[in-house]
Amino acid sequence: MTLFPTIAAFHAALDGLPAIDEVAVAAARDRQGQLTKPPGSLGRLEDVACFLAGWQGTARPHLAAGQAILFAGNHGVAARGVSAYPAAVTAQMVANFKAGGAAINALSQVAGLSLHVISLDLDRPTADFTSGPALDEAECLAALGAGATAVPADCDLLVLGEMGIANSTAAAALAARSFGGAAVDWVGPGTGVDSHGIARKIAVVEAGLEAHADAPTDPFGTLRRVGGRETAAIAGAVVAARLRRIPVMLDGFICCAAIAPLAQARPGIVDHCLAAHLSAEPGHARLLERLGLSPLLSLGMRLGEGSGAAVAVLLLRAALAAHNGMATFAEASVSGSV
Amino acid sequence: MTLFPTIAAFHAALDGLPAIDEVAVAAARDRQGQLTKPPGSLGRLEDVACFLAGWQGTARPHLAAGQAILFAGNHGVAARGVSAYPAAVTAQMVANFKAGGAAINALSQVAGLSLHVISLDLDRPTADFTSGPALDEAECLAALGAGATAVPADCDLLVLGEMGIANSTAAAALAARSFGGAAVDWVGPGTGVDSHGIARKIAVVEAGLEAHADAPTDPFGTLRRVGGRETAAIAGAVVAARLRRIPVMLDGFICCAAIAPLAQARPGIVDHCLAAHLSAEPGHARLLERLGLSPLLSLGMRLGEGSGAAVAVLLLRAALAAHNGMATFAEASVSGSV
Repeated sequence: MTLFPTIAAFHAALDGLPAIDEVAVAAARDRQGQLTKPPGSLGRLEDVACFLAGWQGTARPHLAAGQAILFAGNHGVAARGVSAYPAAVTAQMVANFKAGGAAINALSQVAGLSLHVISLDLDRPTADFTSGPALDEAECLAALGAGATAVPADCDLLVLGEMGIANSTAAAALAARSFGGAAVDWVGPGTGVDSHGIARKIAVVEAGLEAHADAPTDPFGTLRRVGGRETAAIAGAVVAARLRRIPVMLDGFICCAAIAPLAQARPGIVDHCLAAHLSAEPGHARLLERLGLSPLLSLGMRLGEGSGAAVAVLLLRAALAAHNGMATFAEASVSGSV
Repeated sequence: MTLFPTIAAFHAALDGLPAIDEVAVAAARDRQGQLTKPPGSLGRLEDVACFLAGWQGTARPHLAAGQAILFAGNHGVAARGVSAYPAAVTAQMVANFKAGGAAINALSQVAGLSLHVISLDLDRPTADFTSGPALDEAECLAALGAGATAVPADCDLLVLGEMGIANSTAAAALAARSFGGAAVDWVGPGTGVDSHGIARKIAVVEAGLEAHADAPTDPFGTLRRVGGRETAAIAGAVVAARLRRIPVMLDGFICCAAIAPLAQARPGIVDHCLAAHLSAEPGHARLLERLGLSPLLSLGMRLGEGSGAAVAVLLLRAALAAHNGMATFAEASVSGSV
């Protein structure tokens, strides 16, 4: 049984998003105030501990079952010269993920995450979105469902990443169609195209926006018209996690663009999400601003795969180590402020 | 035998600082270019891996013996109402460190660091620097030597932190005397004093600068006139680490202020140092700029103890996991860029 059997079911889920447990947040905040440090002196580490408390529904949140999921898909627009790499690299990198040789393998291991790599019909790229919808309704529902189904019921953190040659072009189109602005505002070098490649990306995104200018802009409609299977899967996973109150760590530009169509209609969709990092992809800062998310890291990363998200999980481990491991002023017989 | 038996020996060490191993840096950079990712796409994680390679003198740097050292000292100016906490808290927090209940305990554990806490004559606070040198020459040499001696010969990363009620006042004076500017440019809330407390801190720093205005501004002279035992120990540890080519992770405002007198005379003293984070203490951004260091994190932390430095070590673990654990394009049979 799939969580989103119909488009209406998907949109209905967006209308019934559960909220954070404010009682658990307050209990965690109270504990932070008792720990042997000046109040607030651990900065965002305190905030993320309380955030995890709120979504896990406990004053003492944990990170014992963190699940990273990497969705891979192929894109019709790859044939338009928008990537520095050939489309065959998507499948080659999936093989690399499965063999354990990619950045996300090393980083999810150091972050203590289980990693699940899900290939979404790599032999069936999306249609070129400049001449019609990238996915038909059934294909997009299947991708949403694959994302939702992949979320383990018992994980305590969901970490999302993606792989797909040409998907920074699709991401730019998702962002532009969701939040407005010109193609040039959202297009960047991706894996490293030169200025000619960027010009081609801009032209492709402009043509895509024009081709779908008169179509509805509901979340599902935008996801299927200019997105890909991996971005639809990320959207499905984010909603499925929310329905189970599982906190989510988003990776970079493409991962954030995947939820832009949802956030345009329901800004609160990001409430259970953390933005791992500010990517070097120039559109990411604007995208985070539109999503209302403040990145935890800014390291000039621009790889995708969930790599920045895995690194940011290390900050959650630090936050929880302090939150759960420190002594209180009373326990340690330390004087409070005068 | 102490590394700095005389003031002249300390200053001579600053004149003979070893340089990074550029061959090892180049070998590490070459490896980064072969790993299965677009070149540069791991951003600063690539840079820090190459930095560690250069100081460890190997293309495959490691982090198997990271040593955190927390120096604690007491300050005569604490009696001037410059801290939100009573001076007794320094010793109480040292007891908390030794019992394992403080933030640095939890954070150094999650970062995989050994932690050494060194109390420096807590029952003998420095003299009030508004009426004379904080330390006499012998006391300052002893503190420098304690810092130098504490650095294990075989550690592969040194992580520095401090504890000392009122030491953000001493740090502001160290920064101002080293880099110029008014007291107000360097004074902030520290552990959390209110606006009256900040006004008192500014007045104390101004008085201190005035009291020593005509004295020499050599590194040792500034360290002993307005600094404390823990800041002198940090300076000694940074120099001792450099002589052994051990890379150093600096914590926040106070830790950075401890090396300001050295950097004013020898800017290259920071070459083997990483700045862990941008503290919430307002003077820290200016201080990092003067030191020529770019912080790895910006999380609004302002605790000290080495807490931000320990968190930043997690980024080094991520960097090394990728650097040493990833497959090359050739190993993984992945196509390079077109």
